[in-house]
Amino acid sequence: MHATVIHGARDIRYEEVPDPVLSTGGDAIVRVVAACVCGSDLWPYRGVTPTHEPHRIGHEFVGVVEEVGPKVTRVAVGDFVIAPFYDCDNTCINCRNGVSTSCQHGGWWGSEDEFGAFADGGQGEKVRVPHADGSLVATPGYPAEELIPSLLSLADVMGTGHHAAVSAGVSQGSTVVVVGDGAVGLCAVLASKRLGASRIIAMSRHEARQELARAFGATDIVEERGDDGVARVKAMLDDIGADCVLECVGTKESMDQAIRSARPGGMVGYVGAPNGGPELPVRRLFNTNVGVNGGVAPVRGYVEELLADVLAGAIDPGRVFDLELPLSDVAEAYAAMDERRAIKVLLRP
Amino acid sequence: MHATVIHGARDIRYEEVPDPVLSTGGDAIVRVVAACVCGSDLWPYRGVTPTHEPHRIGHEFVGVVEEVGPKVTRVAVGDFVIAPFYDCDNTCINCRNGVSTSCQHGGWWGSEDEFGAFADGGQGEKVRVPHADGSLVATPGYPAEELIPSLLSLADVMGTGHHAAVSAGVSQGSTVVVVGDGAVGLCAVLASKRLGASRIIAMSRHEARQELARAFGATDIVEERGDDGVARVKAMLDDIGADCVLECVGTKESMDQAIRSARPGGMVGYVGAPNGGPELPVRRLFNTNVGVNGGVAPVRGYVEELLADVLAGAIDPGRVFDLELPLSDVAEAYAAMDERRAIKVLLRP
Repeated sequence: MHATVIHGARDIRYEEVPDPVLSTGGDAIVRVVAACVCGSDLWPYRGVTPTHEPHRIGHEFVGVVEEVGPKVTRVAVGDFVIAPFYDCDNTCINCRNGVSTSCQHGGWWGSEDEFGAFADGGQGEKVRVPHADGSLVATPGYPAEELIPSLLSLADVMGTGHHAAVSAGVSQGSTVVVVGDGAVGLCAVLASKRLGASRIIAMSRHEARQELARAFGATDIVEERGDDGVARVKAMLDDIGADCVLECVGTKESMDQAIRSARPGGMVGYVGAPNGGPELPVRRLFNTNVGVNGGVAPVRGYVEELLADVLAGAIDPGRVFDLELPLSDVAEAYAAMDERRAIKVLLRP
Repeated sequence: MHATVIHGARDIRYEEVPDPVLSTGGDAIVRVVAACVCGSDLWPYRGVTPTHEPHRIGHEFVGVVEEVGPKVTRVAVGDFVIAPFYDCDNTCINCRNGVSTSCQHGGWWGSEDEFGAFADGGQGEKVRVPHADGSLVATPGYPAEELIPSLLSLADVMGTGHHAAVSAGVSQGSTVVVVGDGAVGLCAVLASKRLGASRIIAMSRHEARQELARAFGATDIVEERGDDGVARVKAMLDDIGADCVLECVGTKESMDQAIRSARPGGMVGYVGAPNGGPELPVRRLFNTNVGVNGGVAPVRGYVEELLADVLAGAIDPGRVFDLELPLSDVAEAYAAMDERRAIKVLLRP
């Protein structure tokens, strides 16, 4: 089969690789129907995190089950399935605590599973899925074509935006600021709206993203950043700041923006992968009783809840995909996202 | 009158000072019945935070209202009152949000109020209380003598321990680790028990404190610190750590201990005043979804709830006072706490 391999900074190749083979009894082979590029894939693409040797990449996909191991009981050949951006058994104590990203037996796409067998990257034609029963969620029947982008978003970005909102405690009537207008930030707007936020301020300087933020439920857009951004946000919110701030970038600047945009006693929900830092300023947090909660989003636990809303037409997070390319053009997909020509690129094998 | 003045490191004096005078209309003069020394008073006592010029000190007291300004309506001359460790109007948006330590009109004992009038320190014979209606809570009648230590604890340590527990989300069935065996840590044990925690591990190396921790509801004591402490705690808690960790010290080491003792997805509630740091390690927090919440405790908002339990005999946080001295011996009170000869010293004018 063919799959995406990163060889180094700005060196993405679509190559022939070995076909996956069932090996652990509890695994499945999924034929990928749609995959995509994540903002976090851009860290190695840009060379910010080094690529020491070529390896598979991609961690978001939906597809059809082609084969299952003898221990698999919850998914069957022919099922259309959503995979989270990691695998998990969904039964260990961390999974039961809602933190399946810390599954005691789980792992990451493009690396070896707990038994030493390879789990393919998501940007390929097929993927061997360890812990198929725990990881995969089957849709009721084969979904309508127009739903596929939204279903794919449940693999990562919509679940991740939702995690930011849940971590910040967004609920009925909350005032919310979303820092970051990438696909996750936009999904965080949608998640906040879904959870009942009364005011949602999206911080964005890009017209197309502002438009989508408004479509997803943003009541206000703030283009300023830094001190000016904080001042604008506070002026809109009783001069104190927001109940909940959703940090969806992962830089020192964005976290600083988030913490300073929260009201005393407010909560920052963060899901931006912190790129080598930043450390959090505990004295400021202490003085204002602003909390910080979140992390790598345990999206597996959110799939069923969000899937119901996607199937009911209540949410359409798939709108974050504004470019679709054949998987063989994956290098162009990375370039388009790197240059911010696209919010998020959907790839079709 | 007489009051306590700090002149520098290890230089605590009981001096004659001007009597307080009503000045803002909404203030009151309280004759102090009992005051005490806080762990945070030891920072300037030890010279860790410098004392640039002599100033009043102390922020915990209960007493009897002697005079009230013409705008005061909620407390009256003769009332026995509990003051929080700061003053607040209890009506501004931050107070209404439960964060009265960020009151838009409040201030701190031993400094000027919003009108530039002096609010006395708590370790004195009398205190002028700005925002008397917002700050003071009157008990129903003059309390029994044996209740006074517990009532005094509501000024700070019991409310602060409770805030650690609330910030960490302690609820029915929670597993809890308490880092710190000072008065606040011990009160955090009591607060956790009161909120329904099923397992409460107190980290302490001092026999008398261990005994009080057990009396307050600790199910286990861990004497180890650092890596060994983390390993002991995890071994007791399914090898993952605690749902809730209450950080009641404020050093880099104690915060590190707290974060590493939380399970994936757990929450650290912290109330230890961070002494110049530490910054929080966001990458570790991100990878494990451990949140950090808390800060300077808005105890005013907890007084009524905890007072009801004190008056009903359901909790007895006053047991943290294991030494009582005349206020004129305040220097010895500081020394006793500094040398850990006493957990907390109660002072009688």
